[in-house]
Amino acid sequence: MVLYGAIEAGGTKFVCAVGRSPTDLSEPARIATTTPKETLAQCIEFFRGQPKIDALGLGCFGPLELRRDARAYGHVTTTPKPGWSNADVVGPLARALGVPIGFDTDVNAAVFGESRWGAARDLDTAIYLTIGTGIGGGALIGGQLAHGLVHPEMGHLLVPREPDDLAFAGNCPFHGARCWEGLASGPALARRWGAPAEALPADHPAWDLEARYIASALTSLVLVLSPERLILGGGVMQVSALFPLVRKYLAGSLAGYVAADRLSGGMEEYVVPPQLGTRSGILGALALAEQCA
Amino acid sequence: MVLYGAIEAGGTKFVCAVGRSPTDLSEPARIATTTPKETLAQCIEFFRGQPKIDALGLGCFGPLELRRDARAYGHVTTTPKPGWSNADVVGPLARALGVPIGFDTDVNAAVFGESRWGAARDLDTAIYLTIGTGIGGGALIGGQLAHGLVHPEMGHLLVPREPDDLAFAGNCPFHGARCWEGLASGPALARRWGAPAEALPADHPAWDLEARYIASALTSLVLVLSPERLILGGGVMQVSALFPLVRKYLAGSLAGYVAADRLSGGMEEYVVPPQLGTRSGILGALALAEQCA
Repeated sequence: MVLYGAIEAGGTKFVCAVGRSPTDLSEPARIATTTPKETLAQCIEFFRGQPKIDALGLGCFGPLELRRDARAYGHVTTTPKPGWSNADVVGPLARALGVPIGFDTDVNAAVFGESRWGAARDLDTAIYLTIGTGIGGGALIGGQLAHGLVHPEMGHLLVPREPDDLAFAGNCPFHGARCWEGLASGPALARRWGAPAEALPADHPAWDLEARYIASALTSLVLVLSPERLILGGGVMQVSALFPLVRKYLAGSLAGYVAADRLSGGMEEYVVPPQLGTRSGILGALALAEQCA
Repeated sequence: MVLYGAIEAGGTKFVCAVGRSPTDLSEPARIATTTPKETLAQCIEFFRGQPKIDALGLGCFGPLELRRDARAYGHVTTTPKPGWSNADVVGPLARALGVPIGFDTDVNAAVFGESRWGAARDLDTAIYLTIGTGIGGGALIGGQLAHGLVHPEMGHLLVPREPDDLAFAGNCPFHGARCWEGLASGPALARRWGAPAEALPADHPAWDLEARYIASALTSLVLVLSPERLILGGGVMQVSALFPLVRKYLAGSLAGYVAADRLSGGMEEYVVPPQLGTRSGILGALALAEQCA
């Protein structure tokens, strides 16, 4: 019976597990993200302590080199994260474990997991967004994970400034207050309101403004990619008041321009949380393993 | 020897031709867009006067129903164009001509034509944009034309307002001054400056502002889709001063966030005019015919 390995590689921890599906996934091991050498060695040690796997899936923080024919395939490229710029992540794992490796961004893995077992099952086109410390997005388009020149990342797409937010300088080192992440990530919230996002009460005006920025970004995503569903995860989206506000402002922002049944009514089926909860990423990595086996 | 038919169906005219490639395309016939019945009848008459075709490609103004399993497949859906809302365009042509029909949006057809014979040859991921009376975009993603819930259209994606343009009310009936088309289409230019776009001299400040709005929209498109090339056509892009300005402002707006060779330097190979000139649409329709034959 086949067995797959999965790694959800993040900036603070690498989560490792083995299994075949959501119902038989092993208790995930959490390995602190230190240096590439040390972190990958601990991952390898984890898998050597498990029954032999047939393939490994790796959903990784980026940016990544995903082009199979590139010299740097399997590397993290230009991350500001110390020690990880140009780090080869696929190579050491492939050499040590001797199995095929399915490799993609963390957010592409998440949308793939939701496509295999969650909220994007039976859909051809869906977007997964994580809104937290950063903002990032993955896309399934025509049943395939979207790549391209580099890969979609979505967090820095430009959004119009809300008229009651003109004083905020933004929090993006690249785009200031012009991009979504600079205006709406967890750190942007904290900087604007002088308190961590989790300390802001549910009736704080922060959440109405946050919902408007999220809705603006989703408007552009709907018009560019025409997804069948938008799946919103990440720390900021744990604030349950956000979903109804985001749906309301998205409807207002689209203003009836796109005629589609899914975009009418309350959009409860269109803008949704991940059905796999916090396991979209690790299960997506498992689905990447399954696909490459 | 096979022969294909092609229709580029626009809001003011339907262009019809037969051929196999850019080098043997017949002189196109131009049929005024009146009622669906009359216009399609004239197209049918055109093809009946030609040698028998084996398949027909149709790139059509939208929005369209492109889902093969939908009851309204092959229809224009909710256009404001009088008489064309819910008009079946594929059905009458298929019944009269008895050939398979490749059907997509005008802008998807254009990017497909550029992919088959033009500026997107050998690329997996590219975007074609037309910037003129309206703004619209088509995308080739992973070698396939992008569809989705409806289809990408791109023209109404939201862009930040330029600080020296705060007084303009915008020209979009749906989104006012929040969307790209409302700020940067030909009619938006005319409304802002009180003169038709073609009457504005090359050194008019209109073009610098226009280039900044185009660059903002392209920034979001690069971050969402990661295209390998952006192909810009349409009436407004005939102003030759725009290309260098758009490239300059796109580089400034991305601000080095995306590390890729194609995005460095002057981007002369990244932001380009259509290589097929004004024939992207009709040749794209020909490529759609070829694909479905």
